[in-house]
Amino acid sequence: MTYKEKLLLIRQAMNNDGVYAYIIPSSDPHMSEYLPDRFKCLEFACGFTGSAGTLVITAKEANLWTDARYFVQATEQLERTGYKLMALHAQGVPEYIQWLSGNMEHGASVAFDGKLVSFQLAELIKTELNGLNANIVSDKDYLEAIWINRPALPQKPAYLIDELIAGENVIDKLIKVRAFLKNMRADYHLISSLDDLAWLFNIRGSDVKCNPVTLAFALISHDKAIIFIELSKIKEEDRSYLSDSGVSISSYNDIYTVVKSIASGSIFIDPKRTCFELVQQINASVKVIQGTNPTTNLKAIKNLVEIENTRKTMIKDGVALTRFFKWLEEAVNSGQLTEISVAKILLGFREEQAGFVGESFDTISAYREHGALPHYKATTQSSTELKPEGLFLLDSGGQYIGGTTDVTRVISLGNATDEEKTDYTLVLKGMIEGCSAIFPKGTRGYQIDAITRKPIWDQARNYGHGTGHGVGYFLNVHEGPHVFNTAAIPVDIEPGMITSIEPGIYRPGKYGIRIENLVLSVKDQINEFGEFYAFEALTLAVIDTGLVMSALLEQRHIDWLNQYNQQVVEKLSGYLDSEELKWLTNKARPI
Amino acid sequence: MTYKEKLLLIRQAMNNDGVYAYIIPSSDPHMSEYLPDRFKCLEFACGFTGSAGTLVITAKEANLWTDARYFVQATEQLERTGYKLMALHAQGVPEYIQWLSGNMEHGASVAFDGKLVSFQLAELIKTELNGLNANIVSDKDYLEAIWINRPALPQKPAYLIDELIAGENVIDKLIKVRAFLKNMRADYHLISSLDDLAWLFNIRGSDVKCNPVTLAFALISHDKAIIFIELSKIKEEDRSYLSDSGVSISSYNDIYTVVKSIASGSIFIDPKRTCFELVQQINASVKVIQGTNPTTNLKAIKNLVEIENTRKTMIKDGVALTRFFKWLEEAVNSGQLTEISVAKILLGFREEQAGFVGESFDTISAYREHGALPHYKATTQSSTELKPEGLFLLDSGGQYIGGTTDVTRVISLGNATDEEKTDYTLVLKGMIEGCSAIFPKGTRGYQIDAITRKPIWDQARNYGHGTGHGVGYFLNVHEGPHVFNTAAIPVDIEPGMITSIEPGIYRPGKYGIRIENLVLSVKDQINEFGEFYAFEALTLAVIDTGLVMSALLEQRHIDWLNQYNQQVVEKLSGYLDSEELKWLTNKARPI
Repeated sequence: MTYKEKLLLIRQAMNNDGVYAYIIPSSDPHMSEYLPDRFKCLEFACGFTGSAGTLVITAKEANLWTDARYFVQATEQLERTGYKLMALHAQGVPEYIQWLSGNMEHGASVAFDGKLVSFQLAELIKTELNGLNANIVSDKDYLEAIWINRPALPQKPAYLIDELIAGENVIDKLIKVRAFLKNMRADYHLISSLDDLAWLFNIRGSDVKCNPVTLAFALISHDKAIIFIELSKIKEEDRSYLSDSGVSISSYNDIYTVVKSIASGSIFIDPKRTCFELVQQINASVKVIQGTNPTTNLKAIKNLVEIENTRKTMIKDGVALTRFFKWLEEAVNSGQLTEISVAKILLGFREEQAGFVGESFDTISAYREHGALPHYKATTQSSTELKPEGLFLLDSGGQYIGGTTDVTRVISLGNATDEEKTDYTLVLKGMIEGCSAIFPKGTRGYQIDAITRKPIWDQARNYGHGTGHGVGYFLNVHEGPHVFNTAAIPVDIEPGMITSIEPGIYRPGKYGIRIENLVLSVKDQINEFGEFYAFEALTLAVIDTGLVMSALLEQRHIDWLNQYNQQVVEKLSGYLDSEELKWLTNKARPI
Repeated sequence: MTYKEKLLLIRQAMNNDGVYAYIIPSSDPHMSEYLPDRFKCLEFACGFTGSAGTLVITAKEANLWTDARYFVQATEQLERTGYKLMALHAQGVPEYIQWLSGNMEHGASVAFDGKLVSFQLAELIKTELNGLNANIVSDKDYLEAIWINRPALPQKPAYLIDELIAGENVIDKLIKVRAFLKNMRADYHLISSLDDLAWLFNIRGSDVKCNPVTLAFALISHDKAIIFIELSKIKEEDRSYLSDSGVSISSYNDIYTVVKSIASGSIFIDPKRTCFELVQQINASVKVIQGTNPTTNLKAIKNLVEIENTRKTMIKDGVALTRFFKWLEEAVNSGQLTEISVAKILLGFREEQAGFVGESFDTISAYREHGALPHYKATTQSSTELKPEGLFLLDSGGQYIGGTTDVTRVISLGNATDEEKTDYTLVLKGMIEGCSAIFPKGTRGYQIDAITRKPIWDQARNYGHGTGHGVGYFLNVHEGPHVFNTAAIPVDIEPGMITSIEPGIYRPGKYGIRIENLVLSVKDQINEFGEFYAFEALTLAVIDTGLVMSALLEQRHIDWLNQYNQQVVEKLSGYLDSEELKWLTNKARPI
């Protein structure tokens, strides 16, 4: 079936129900960013494979709303599908509601699948369209009927990780969650978000590509904790460990009836991390208390074991990257390399490392103009041959039992232009400004974002994505609550958080540059002006100096760069053979 | 009556009414920052004279919540009053609600005067204390009964300003406001905020010290506009001009009954800029639509006449400041100068300028350790004698018929220390970073704030106030909606806005440094990365280079400084005598 045929069928169903607009978000019942195949609705409906977007279909229009990371990709993927790209001004903001508000008639019906829309988003849609007396219909899954062979829910095994890896056992984590609930005067707590659940129960899985999570819900009260999960997924010994920690297991689908069976008291939910459909099950007699999941905040602040393991994992990842870039430099002259083939080689180097589980996201192996697509994914059609010229951008990461990595480097394969060098140096300057910032307690992500962008803005350049995202510990490569971007998100940066810093400059049709390290927020000093924090660089991958125009940097940037590269050599030296060390030492020589 | 005696009487009244906590905000029925004497409730109750703060009184505690600008002052002023200082972490955030929530019993009564609390704040108090089933009592003015000779409402004349000064007539402004109302589907619009009203009707007054506003309300519908003002304040010819513009006049107190008399339709109000008491008058049958006053946003973007007049006004103010600093430099050796006496001399220089109306705020003439109090006001008790040593901070501004000024400079009167020079240079560096920023359309104040603070943070220093505030045009020296501070306030910076940039470093007991210019947001360039804005320096006052440690600056900062000082000389040269020009030229010589 073509996309146009699917669209026709959706519109027929809408017409039958008298629905004016149908909203299809990129989500699942757990409000995930990365989706099980069953919930890849945008890809099914219009072919768009980006990780963020929303379709809004009316009788006359069919629009995909996505952000700048995906403009080029979406333009290509939507060709001849009947869908039009609508550019979001700000990542993640549901601007289509404004559009609906401006286009729809009084009293018209707006429909969506309430399992794929967060409670917060559904409430926002209701509020914003309230003036138009919109009729909100939240139980429509128009794709189900037309999706032949729609994939089933994933059934991959789940497994517990050792306390020595997690740094804290389930009992202690539950004590913290229950203390929070008591403080909020809540009797129950419903968890839908998979990474929150994975953290709380020290459980992992492989239901979702790149994210080591397992599909489940959880309901916690002051005397019980239940995981709702496909029973076959859990081994007997894990079940018994959980039982010893006061955690019981129920079937995945039971969550709806169990929530419905609560007759009184109060329940704490995260309106961003719980689907509308599930909240609808809560009885009117039960008080709903809203806020960020306590696990989201607890999980974001890594414990000492997590931090120490992450540092060790960074060495492994750094060794793999060193081997890869050394190999690439030597192999590129031989020809025969493509974006896809080199990504496979990189995966091979990572797989050699103990504890490696898989990629933490689809590797962005982007040569020349492909680098201008911040979330480019090479396909067999697009995969270009690498030649000894032009820029090559590599954004990749791994899931290891002891941590999650995410790193971007750009190298020139030959004949670098002044424009490439200038852009590279400005991006590096911004990245160094962010990574070397000293900032008072209470500073938020938007402040680090501005500091990172400043050197790039100074030359009237910019990038259309955020500066950084929270990173999980052997968990999702994107996690909240903290984020470094331009939005007014009032989340303080706390010591123990791991975040990426990854500014960029993109020249469509030419190249893209992004340089990314993961950093750990740490305490720096206390003085008469208050308490100050700083960042410790976690990522250990040499930053190529061949493209640097020193005149554009101040001495402190050069000092940071030299010191950083020196540190990479020191920390990796014990794990490299002499040829590799020689290569790395040469790459890292001070400028 | 002592403050303790007053507190006792308030507590007796609270006890009679069964009130657990009484909240006294720093406000008036127009949600003003600067208050008519009648509403200086904090000063009456506890002696605190800062421009921002809230008292919360219970049977056991009496607390003043204020921000870092006033910590030192409040500590001194609260001595032996029975009140305790509670430090706000963030300026303007009602953190006392959290405190109440943690301290009060279930079902207790919380009271305030609904005329002094914004609708937004009252709703927030209600929501936050909802879990405790708090009883909110909004009609208690416990000060009225104990305030012997409480000042009456001010009755100073109001007057219209010419279209050539305002740049736009009342009819055209009303057309814009009505277009906004139509778009919001609102039948009525209630304006309480005095600067909004002053802007819309091109009316000014002198009811409030330093702010050229007149006490009034306004109600606008699609066919009528009524100003509610003490009738005697308006001259016959002004009344007739307003009448020709479709504006009628009613008595000040009529606003309550007129609002109450609206029986149907919808009314647009600004929840931050309208008092709770007035919103209570709105019939349940009238739909309340909330948002920022359209005039607040329109007023913030200065028209071409306002901009051109402001530029001319800056020359006048710059001439006055030049004469003052030249005089001070010469006179300081003669002795006999005090903080108060030099502020009077400065006022004299400003008064010589055509169109000068008065000070735009109380001059902060702060010698040595007094400079560490960001909002210091010299009193006859505190006023220190200036000697040829130490730092002198002068933060002052004027109201002119053609604009409002606000400028801070710091000079050394002799024997500057390395610490003083370092701090001065860091503050200057931050100020230059902010003033010279290039930033994309969509940038908000919190981003400029971070960029300005960066050089100061780099040395683990900071300042406890915002980086800048919006500035009116012959109107309030503080105006919204834009502000440059650390808070997550999602207001975009638009071309035509005037804002201050004023970082600082304060060393309690030693000195304070703050350097402040007003800047105009302007369009800079459009390129493949989007549209970029920049700032034009409006303030024309030489920045002393004697305290600059060049080694702490980069060349671009030195270039900016030299160019700025050169521009001051060029723009003022035609208005100075040869001795003054010689002095200024010398001060402005490049470093």
